[in-house]
Amino acid sequence: MTTPAYTLSAETRARLEGVSTASVATALFKRGLRNQFIQGVSPVCYKGRRMVGQAFTLRYIPAREDRNPITVFRNADHPQRVAVETCPPGWVLVMDSRKDARAASAGSILVTRLARRGCAGIVTDGGFRDAEGIGALDMPAYHQRPSAPTNLTLHEALDLNVPIACGDVPVFPGDVLLGDGDGVMVIPAALADEIAAECTGMESFEDFVLEQVNAGAAVIGLYPPTTDAAQADYAAWRDRTGR
Amino acid sequence: MTTPAYTLSAETRARLEGVSTASVATALFKRGLRNQFIQGVSPVCYKGRRMVGQAFTLRYIPAREDRNPITVFRNADHPQRVAVETCPPGWVLVMDSRKDARAASAGSILVTRLARRGCAGIVTDGGFRDAEGIGALDMPAYHQRPSAPTNLTLHEALDLNVPIACGDVPVFPGDVLLGDGDGVMVIPAALADEIAAECTGMESFEDFVLEQVNAGAAVIGLYPPTTDAAQADYAAWRDRTGR
Amino acid sequence: MTTPAYTLSAETRARLEGVSTASVATALFKRGLRNQFIQGVSPVCYKGRRMVGQAFTLRYIPAREDRNPITVFRNADHPQRVAVETCPPGWVLVMDSRKDARAASAGSILVTRLARRGCAGIVTDGGFRDAEGIGALDMPAYHQRPSAPTNLTLHEALDLNVPIACGDVPVFPGDVLLGDGDGVMVIPAALADEIAAECTGMESFEDFVLEQVNAGAAVIGLYPPTTDAAQADYAAWRDRTGR
Amino acid sequence: MTTPAYTLSAETRARLEGVSTASVATALFKRGLRNQFIQGVSPVCYKGRRMVGQAFTLRYIPAREDRNPITVFRNADHPQRVAVETCPPGWVLVMDSRKDARAASAGSILVTRLARRGCAGIVTDGGFRDAEGIGALDMPAYHQRPSAPTNLTLHEALDLNVPIACGDVPVFPGDVLLGDGDGVMVIPAALADEIAAECTGMESFEDFVLEQVNAGAAVIGLYPPTTDAAQADYAAWRDRTGR
Amino acid sequence: MTTPAYTLSAETRARLEGVSTASVATALFKRGLRNQFIQGVSPVCYKGRRMVGQAFTLRYIPAREDRNPITVFRNADHPQRVAVETCPPGWVLVMDSRKDARAASAGSILVTRLARRGCAGIVTDGGFRDAEGIGALDMPAYHQRPSAPTNLTLHEALDLNVPIACGDVPVFPGDVLLGDGDGVMVIPAALADEIAAECTGMESFEDFVLEQVNAGAAVIGLYPPTTDAAQADYAAWRDRTGR
Amino acid sequence: MTTPAYTLSAETRARLEGVSTASVATALFKRGLRNQFIQGVSPVCYKGRRMVGQAFTLRYIPAREDRNPITVFRNADHPQRVAVETCPPGWVLVMDSRKDARAASAGSILVTRLARRGCAGIVTDGGFRDAEGIGALDMPAYHQRPSAPTNLTLHEALDLNVPIACGDVPVFPGDVLLGDGDGVMVIPAALADEIAAECTGMESFEDFVLEQVNAGAAVIGLYPPTTDAAQADYAAWRDRTGR
Repeated sequence: MTTPAYTLSAETRARLEGVSTASVATALFKRGLRNQFIQGVSPVCYKGRRMVGQAFTLRYIPAREDRNPITVFRNADHPQRVAVETCPPGWVLVMDSRKDARAASAGSILVTRLARRGCAGIVTDGGFRDAEGIGALDMPAYHQRPSAPTNLTLHEALDLNVPIACGDVPVFPGDVLLGDGDGVMVIPAALADEIAAECTGMESFEDFVLEQVNAGAAVIGLYPPTTDAAQADYAAWRDRTGR
Repeated sequence: MTTPAYTLSAETRARLEGVSTASVATALFKRGLRNQFIQGVSPVCYKGRRMVGQAFTLRYIPAREDRNPITVFRNADHPQRVAVETCPPGWVLVMDSRKDARAASAGSILVTRLARRGCAGIVTDGGFRDAEGIGALDMPAYHQRPSAPTNLTLHEALDLNVPIACGDVPVFPGDVLLGDGDGVMVIPAALADEIAAECTGMESFEDFVLEQVNAGAAVIGLYPPTTDAAQADYAAWRDRTGR
Repeated sequence: MTTPAYTLSAETRARLEGVSTASVATALFKRGLRNQFIQGVSPVCYKGRRMVGQAFTLRYIPAREDRNPITVFRNADHPQRVAVETCPPGWVLVMDSRKDARAASAGSILVTRLARRGCAGIVTDGGFRDAEGIGALDMPAYHQRPSAPTNLTLHEALDLNVPIACGDVPVFPGDVLLGDGDGVMVIPAALADEIAAECTGMESFEDFVLEQVNAGAAVIGLYPPTTDAAQADYAAWRDRTGR
Repeated sequence: MTTPAYTLSAETRARLEGVSTASVATALFKRGLRNQFIQGVSPVCYKGRRMVGQAFTLRYIPAREDRNPITVFRNADHPQRVAVETCPPGWVLVMDSRKDARAASAGSILVTRLARRGCAGIVTDGGFRDAEGIGALDMPAYHQRPSAPTNLTLHEALDLNVPIACGDVPVFPGDVLLGDGDGVMVIPAALADEIAAECTGMESFEDFVLEQVNAGAAVIGLYPPTTDAAQADYAAWRDRTGR
Repeated sequence: MTTPAYTLSAETRARLEGVSTASVATALFKRGLRNQFIQGVSPVCYKGRRMVGQAFTLRYIPAREDRNPITVFRNADHPQRVAVETCPPGWVLVMDSRKDARAASAGSILVTRLARRGCAGIVTDGGFRDAEGIGALDMPAYHQRPSAPTNLTLHEALDLNVPIACGDVPVFPGDVLLGDGDGVMVIPAALADEIAAECTGMESFEDFVLEQVNAGAAVIGLYPPTTDAAQADYAAWRDRTGR
Repeated sequence: MTTPAYTLSAETRARLEGVSTASVATALFKRGLRNQFIQGVSPVCYKGRRMVGQAFTLRYIPAREDRNPITVFRNADHPQRVAVETCPPGWVLVMDSRKDARAASAGSILVTRLARRGCAGIVTDGGFRDAEGIGALDMPAYHQRPSAPTNLTLHEALDLNVPIACGDVPVFPGDVLLGDGDGVMVIPAALADEIAAECTGMESFEDFVLEQVNAGAAVIGLYPPTTDAAQADYAAWRDRTGR
């Protein structure tokens, strides 16, 4: 385990709760980071509230039958169980399940414990069992699809807080995750504050544009604002709305 | 761009709004067209109303990094933006995204503009960003799955109104699209009127059959109606219901 | 067709209606059966009620065009139609569609007939057409995704009640299927009674654990119950709740 | 097991040995059969000689662990072993392995036995183990890729001589298989004689065309021969070559 | 059709014949172009000689049955035939087959014609029929896998010399293709001269490194040459070898 | 890095050089290990000699662009370079490339260095660049397919000698790898000696069987040897051949 140097501030967390994964994707794209969207995952049951938190990681490798009988769960050091008890409140447990959803990455009891401990969410590029129970929790959860078989069938929990792959994206412990209805973006820790600030402005502008479009405006010249008129309108809108 | 010769009549549009993609698939199958169902797409948020309209097409190719910086959107001729402003009211914008949903084909602002312009719908074999916003619109939208990254990441908008592939189906500008809860059928323009007429009759018969089945009838002999009794019952039902 | 020797008792059925696919998966895993979860299917429209029933099977092979014109449905012996009329009440029709959802495995009229006949459910590793109509029925249905094209496009119905593959799982006629929100487990007939009994106990224990976790308990030592305290607490809970 | 009515004549066999899978594919396409090429298989080690023979089929379903211990091979009735001993000389053993090559469909000892018995070839849409040994035999073999694990790992041999799927193609017992460097075509038994005759002519014409092209001719007007000159040249070539 | 502005010089062609796709990939990577390797294609029969030439493109879309009977080949304007007769000598015919190798992109007669016309090669992200015949030609050919069915089964030839996708890479008419045993790189026309020059130097250095490694040198410090000794050795080697 | 406790003896190495991956797969299957065959890899250029050695592992995660410029190779601690210089002679370098062959796992210079250092082989579930050069080496190499792009495009080298996934198989440092024409088996270190011994006997028996089959024997009763005659014949053969 390494100790991530970055700590998400309350201000950046609040800002990120107000921005979309689409805006973050664009802001990272502008910086040359084109591959930070976790591919192939969706919310278990989206409730219209964003997930924001730093990544606490769990790495699975394929399960070898002799090392993964049902009795391994009796071991107090089993990494999956330890992960659930040590992921810090406000953080997100991110699992590298090698995109294999043929067996579960976790089930509702463990995810409930994570929620009760105040964690911010859970993400796997595999699947959850008892997904209905997980979807009923208040804490956001993202996966590929439901999967009833126990994780021991295909996944051996191995490492905590090492860099992992999740849905083809590198996730370093301490990176900041943002989840909404589209899915989950991974923001490198060192960029989180500036991305949060920049995207807050982007959201303001997009709200203005959407208002204009709903009022009948064309997008060319407005989005992006290449005309003087569009820029003036936006300035006026900002004055008027205080954003 | 080519100018499609066929124009969807109000009568055919109305008929198609009353038939299912399943009926259209069967009617096309009878004519030897076995591959007109766009594979792998589903409604962003189905509202129980069918999508009907002619195809206005947009072709993407894979994005080359040097040709697709964020600044291309400042170009008033960017094909994606032009598509959104020129797809005719009542038509459907259909995008060839090469079945690649790792980046978005479009986002909620552009799709909102399309809806405000009176277009009939939008279809991509890729994904939409801010899918929640798109799902909240009244206009039908079909895609593979949500995807936050900007289209510039993987897609370069190239052509308008050329024949394209969408979900393994050929789509010619002016073809008629029908979408429902199952997905989207592509009806060759030259067949749209006769398919609409034939399917209207099929729907009438299927409503009769469903009524019979709900009343306890067996399907053999009834669906299709191979017995004299079944044919007589249907004739009587048509008299009674005026269909 | 073979006649399965096992008949699901009312007691076992009732027990299975109270257990999750996750519990069954674990119980089968303990017996060395690691591959009984039908991969890649989900409920058409889940209503919070489990599907329980023995398997009546239908095998499709790829359709050869000359053998599968639309007129084959006029044949009173067409295996798909016969399946719908002969699957026993309380049983589940399970279809081997070779995981190919590019054409439908069945549509709403046939599935409605199956429901009216008192069958317990329908499962395909392909797709259904008019999935909306099927989702509106009270009978559970599981598939990969909606698919409008008629089954004749890609599937020839061939055999009834032979062992099949469904979603990479072997299904023998008479096996017991359990479906919930996660998907469908296949329980070998010979194990159904003991699995049902064992899982009933597992569910009781998991309800206890969930209650503890919701009250703030940690999972290590409790799940599984490796401490004397956890075992005593569970014994007391069982006394108190009568479970 | 059913008894196929058709028997491949020596004349048709000889003709098919002289035609390519490409020609057969085109001849079947002209008759509306578009899906007779076994997808995803290639020769284990191609030796420039075509495989021709009728199909003797073996169906695998996914292996359930308790039914497939290593001891099942002691059973004299094990269908895989029986297949190897009963596939008629001159026929081809075709296996439905559900396109799953993660475990073997057969190994070199069984395939050697098949070769020694005078069979014409073996095809699986899975993989062979000890593929090197199989490639060293004189008898043609087609598979997806080599695979070391025993078939018991994933495949239970179930049925002999029932219609099957192989590489997304329906194969009926008695159908005629033609294999060359491109792969394997399945010719419905009832069409074998006429396809063989027609393709013999096509090969003659293609040899003529290739000679012309190698001599510098353009393909337009020649292939197909739409000009009078091309037709006259071909007639002259046939006279000259006696084909 | 557009007319590409760039013409490959004899010097750049000669240089590219001496460099590997790996070197070109690295040189493009340094310029921010990370996606120029055509994915999923390999030489039909590699002969140790590189393919170099500018791209002449052919776009296929999925075939609609009524538009693609066998008789379309009688049409002197059929784009596939026209492509074969108009691709300039020294150029490479590149086909967008949407990565679908279930039917052929072309066969040996057309490819022979292309070779006789002095073209530099042919590439498809689909498959070739009569791949053995194509492999026997002197002209390089790259595809996914052999495929016997006629292109009409799944591909309608539509456009010549428009930008296309091939193996997930954008290919613009006039781009320079380099093929070797690894596969095919697409070099944007505007970069071809500088890439050829830079890679010539890279190859020289790699030959030096390989000589050193074969003589027992470690790679760290040498590859890349971060030590003064390594740089001096390379300078001496260049003096000695005249490269 | 952990230090594996097991060291492969010369005797076990010699035995394994005489057995096939198929035999090892069966021996592991008998012990309940069903998933030890690395899926999807093949020899770069098979030379009829087996690869045997213990696993030295390298783990890649997806590359983040800002962390993986070309200059990282100047770093003397870059894990890929360190792996090549520290993998012990007689061992096999095994790379977890997450089954992603869109960019290379390594190229010919590094693999040549590995060969010169006396390593026993290299395995990746991705691809190699300059595969032709690697295939020309005497040291065995296994991959998915050739891939020209530098590993920096998609892979960041992260860890040495941690447990990894390779082709869906868990590989622990020190496990014993056996490669032949079929592919690569992973033998858990603790089982290597007994598996080598058992398989040596299996190979002896299979050689006997193959001799019998080539002489015209049927497989039933012989393979496995369920008859007294078969067992007596084998005993006699062992006496005669000294095996």
